[in-house]
Amino acid sequence: MEERIHTWNELAAQLAVDSIRCSTAAGSGHPTSSMSSAHLLAVLYADHLRTDVSDPKSLANDRFVMSKGHAAPLLYSVLKSIGAIDDEELLTLRRFGSPIQGHPAPVPELPWIDVATGSLGQGLPIGLGMALGIKLDRSPARVWVLLGDSEMAEGSVWEAIEAAAFHGVDNLVAILDLNRLGQRGPTMHEWQADVFTARAQAFGWHTLAIDGHDVAAIDEAYSAAVLADRPVLVVARTEKGHGASLVQNKEGWHGKPLSPEQAEQAIAELGGERSIVITPSKPESFAPVEAPPPSKDEAPAYDGPVATRKAFGDALSWLAGRRSDVVVLDGEVGNSTYTEEFSKVAPERFFQMYIAEQCMIGAQVGLQALGKTAFSATFGAFLTRAVDFVRMAAVSRANLRLCGTHAGVSIGEDGPSQMALEDLATTRALHGSTVLYPADGNATVRLVETMCDLPGISYLRATREATPSLYGANEEFPIGGSKTLASGSDDRVSLVGAGVTLHECLRAAEALAVKGVVARVIDCYSIKPIDAATLRRALEDTGLLVVVEDHRIEGGAGDAVLEALAATGKLTGRVVKLAVTGMPGSGTPEELRAWAGIDADAIVARVLAELA
Amino acid sequence: MEERIHTWNELAAQLAVDSIRCSTAAGSGHPTSSMSSAHLLAVLYADHLRTDVSDPKSLANDRFVMSKGHAAPLLYSVLKSIGAIDDEELLTLRRFGSPIQGHPAPVPELPWIDVATGSLGQGLPIGLGMALGIKLDRSPARVWVLLGDSEMAEGSVWEAIEAAAFHGVDNLVAILDLNRLGQRGPTMHEWQADVFTARAQAFGWHTLAIDGHDVAAIDEAYSAAVLADRPVLVVARTEKGHGASLVQNKEGWHGKPLSPEQAEQAIAELGGERSIVITPSKPESFAPVEAPPPSKDEAPAYDGPVATRKAFGDALSWLAGRRSDVVVLDGEVGNSTYTEEFSKVAPERFFQMYIAEQCMIGAQVGLQALGKTAFSATFGAFLTRAVDFVRMAAVSRANLRLCGTHAGVSIGEDGPSQMALEDLATTRALHGSTVLYPADGNATVRLVETMCDLPGISYLRATREATPSLYGANEEFPIGGSKTLASGSDDRVSLVGAGVTLHECLRAAEALAVKGVVARVIDCYSIKPIDAATLRRALEDTGLLVVVEDHRIEGGAGDAVLEALAATGKLTGRVVKLAVTGMPGSGTPEELRAWAGIDADAIVARVLAELA
Repeated sequence: MEERIHTWNELAAQLAVDSIRCSTAAGSGHPTSSMSSAHLLAVLYADHLRTDVSDPKSLANDRFVMSKGHAAPLLYSVLKSIGAIDDEELLTLRRFGSPIQGHPAPVPELPWIDVATGSLGQGLPIGLGMALGIKLDRSPARVWVLLGDSEMAEGSVWEAIEAAAFHGVDNLVAILDLNRLGQRGPTMHEWQADVFTARAQAFGWHTLAIDGHDVAAIDEAYSAAVLADRPVLVVARTEKGHGASLVQNKEGWHGKPLSPEQAEQAIAELGGERSIVITPSKPESFAPVEAPPPSKDEAPAYDGPVATRKAFGDALSWLAGRRSDVVVLDGEVGNSTYTEEFSKVAPERFFQMYIAEQCMIGAQVGLQALGKTAFSATFGAFLTRAVDFVRMAAVSRANLRLCGTHAGVSIGEDGPSQMALEDLATTRALHGSTVLYPADGNATVRLVETMCDLPGISYLRATREATPSLYGANEEFPIGGSKTLASGSDDRVSLVGAGVTLHECLRAAEALAVKGVVARVIDCYSIKPIDAATLRRALEDTGLLVVVEDHRIEGGAGDAVLEALAATGKLTGRVVKLAVTGMPGSGTPEELRAWAGIDADAIVARVLAELA
Repeated sequence: MEERIHTWNELAAQLAVDSIRCSTAAGSGHPTSSMSSAHLLAVLYADHLRTDVSDPKSLANDRFVMSKGHAAPLLYSVLKSIGAIDDEELLTLRRFGSPIQGHPAPVPELPWIDVATGSLGQGLPIGLGMALGIKLDRSPARVWVLLGDSEMAEGSVWEAIEAAAFHGVDNLVAILDLNRLGQRGPTMHEWQADVFTARAQAFGWHTLAIDGHDVAAIDEAYSAAVLADRPVLVVARTEKGHGASLVQNKEGWHGKPLSPEQAEQAIAELGGERSIVITPSKPESFAPVEAPPPSKDEAPAYDGPVATRKAFGDALSWLAGRRSDVVVLDGEVGNSTYTEEFSKVAPERFFQMYIAEQCMIGAQVGLQALGKTAFSATFGAFLTRAVDFVRMAAVSRANLRLCGTHAGVSIGEDGPSQMALEDLATTRALHGSTVLYPADGNATVRLVETMCDLPGISYLRATREATPSLYGANEEFPIGGSKTLASGSDDRVSLVGAGVTLHECLRAAEALAVKGVVARVIDCYSIKPIDAATLRRALEDTGLLVVVEDHRIEGGAGDAVLEALAATGKLTGRVVKLAVTGMPGSGTPEELRAWAGIDADAIVARVLAELA
């Protein structure tokens, strides 16, 4: 044991020294927040976390999530200590082009990192998702999450604590680095470990409180943690900047590197540089669950009105039989989003996350990191609860399939709190996102099927009310495509709609025809990427393009159309955006579309005014 | 006492009956979720909540927040019972044009409602803000918040529970309607009241558990609650649909009205219609704190480089002396956003909300509801944590002043997790929002001063690094305006920038001048509303307009410019958007702007290519 203690302490000292070295070389970064956790990770990687460094993506491996992402120097120092990166790479921290970024990101060069962190409060929801995925795979792997004390103020952490207890995950260990100091001074509870143990216990967790620099205590805690029948929180009292008297437990050292002279002194105090390389324990082998043969059921098809949210649920239910990798998360609205259709046929792959959208998306990121094809759904309005999680998922290079139902004023009587009116703006702006908005049931089924294999973040916008059938069951809906539903040689206006407004455009075209105005109608079911060529041709052919959307006028389909037109050359013609500009109240969908000026009558009136 | 018990029960029955009547008349809504809380609100309004119904905005009044906003029928039934609205109005529930919307909203016709609810988990953060505002005013008023049990899964509730205990608010009572049933079935903890009392106690609250249909127990609990020296949670075990056997404690009745026949039977079971009108107790009178005379200090002014985030903090500090209504909330990054400058001069009006952005914005909504001019600030990236709160703040007709610092790839080494790259898209899409992005210190000070009196939600985007001084201290920056910094009669291109990219545009214009290309440069410091006339003229004059922004290409300044051009007539000319399209890593601000193609060199190259 004494030898182990020596090894752990030496490794911890190396991790602290390397954290200082790389941040001093960078001239910025978080050495002190790294040093507080050095013993915690030294013992973890030396003796508890089971992983094959040469096969980091193996599903047999334990996972580690650095929730306190600003302690990135420590994570990179650990990667060096396990032989994943070398010292030269470590010292490129924060340099342009280096994978060793200021906060951890799962860039291709660093397959040992599963997810990006750096926005606090996200690591535990993600770790929960991994733990759920591991249990689904019946793997013996475990998930270890290192939490900072400042992030315990984020509600998303408590969402995950609640959900982990509810789901009975016994393969999740959270380690709380209680280093007392936040960014601008002491944290709310400083070193009161009992505050956190009492809370976690009240939420159903097993807890342990230790001295986070006592390696034997850490080892004992981890050994006990893996035996618990529930999730475990290890509260470790530590010192920020531990081991270097200049910075140890001192205010004013958050996010600051030591100067070269200060670093030299601190490194000497820590016993100098070392070059220990450890080999973590290999994971237990396990046989993945054999997937049942894919069902040969036909895709759902519609020849009458159906709500696209219902078609979404039907599609998921159909996909459940065809693909065993598909999992679905619900924010306790599965009877509204129709994810309950999936839960009926694949309950073991359906995760009820209750009304906690941040945790739902975090868990989804964790599930996809283990190879699951994960869908989540809630009202589009309430997905805005988790924007930061989706933003970070893009940094995580995550493949997320999101569905936001109850889009626009067309939900009717429930009023504005339930209306998704900003969702297209939010999802369009995400890096690498795909934004889809089908107008009928058959289009929805095809797009949901396509989403299964889309990289990045894809968002399907769904309508509450039933919409008429427009397309046959075998129609194809390529990403970036569009459908021209009415077109002639003498089109004088192009009407561009998507989802519910496409039907208004079609009605408007009929009414305009009666008045002798032939209108082209384009279904922009793919808002991002958008069919720029078709839109440009439409403007060139007709000189007037009217984009109609049940969304705020900023950032949605109208802006997407303008962007496409601008990106493809000189602008010539008139583009009119009809969208929601006021604050809606209650009413029927028809009343509210009329009020917003996005119904067929409003389209007709505007077209005639423009052509007058 | 027996008479009081009779009165309370009669009033509760009336509230249940009226909730049934109005939702049945509407054909939709949430009668059962209203009925579970009827006794809780009957006792509250009859004997505990102190308010002057004829002067609902008086700061002396207690405040009530219906966090479970779907129980709106109950709230309207209460408003009828206190004589605020009449039965005819009640029966307009959910009709188009009626203020009696599907979820509560503070429309002008209903001054008894302070904030909108309907997105769960927001009422307690808002109530906390009200409680803080009341204490700041040294008013004896109290805040009562009615919580639903499903929303206890939202982390934002726990953020508020944490913050309320930390701030020691003893004027906040939360009532948890534990009715066991969520939207699609039982809640996670059903009737386990001890789960919630244990947790709230672990967070530092006083708790009480009662039968939520026992009016004497409710009365006793409220009487005890107001005597506690800390925030209080009253956990009330109730039945959804209580009092009508058809729906009482039955699954499948969430959000469903009774049919006229079912309603008739239920109303009979509840003892029929009543027309009780009660008068709540009048509030204690109190003398508002007298404001000190406004300081005559000069506004901060700069004649050299300064970071706009620093100028923001300086402006707040200056305004602290001039306006006693200004309060500031921090998400534990006050040394980065420089709100710490305000905290130094007005610590009693500075609220440290720690790293809990949802609670920060919720509390801000509560503070502004009591007339405070409230600013909050964090990294722009982390404001995305609270998008749903800001969205709902717009429904609340709230006046919020937000500052998001560390915008764009220009933050440099910290990497993408800390970069606000979607914030303009998000804030532009908010109803009635104002979006500002100053390029120098003096512009920042003027815009912050202007924000104090702006209605709705205003967002100031601030840069991490120091930027050169461009404007004199007395320059004016009207909302919706712009500044043309370089212009001649032979301009061949218009460069449009804002914030950090304006400086790149100016450098590009200098470099282009050397090559014989005269460029107009426009500072679009007001992104929404935007100076459409100047932009249109620029495109008409030069035929080429290049918009440069340190933001994703979707939804930001480029889209705002295109929207303005489209809205003002036929499009003719070339508009090029230069923005961030890839996933950044770490690097210096200069390296990252070059990588993104938004620096002076990239602008020059693109302009020359377009003109070639």
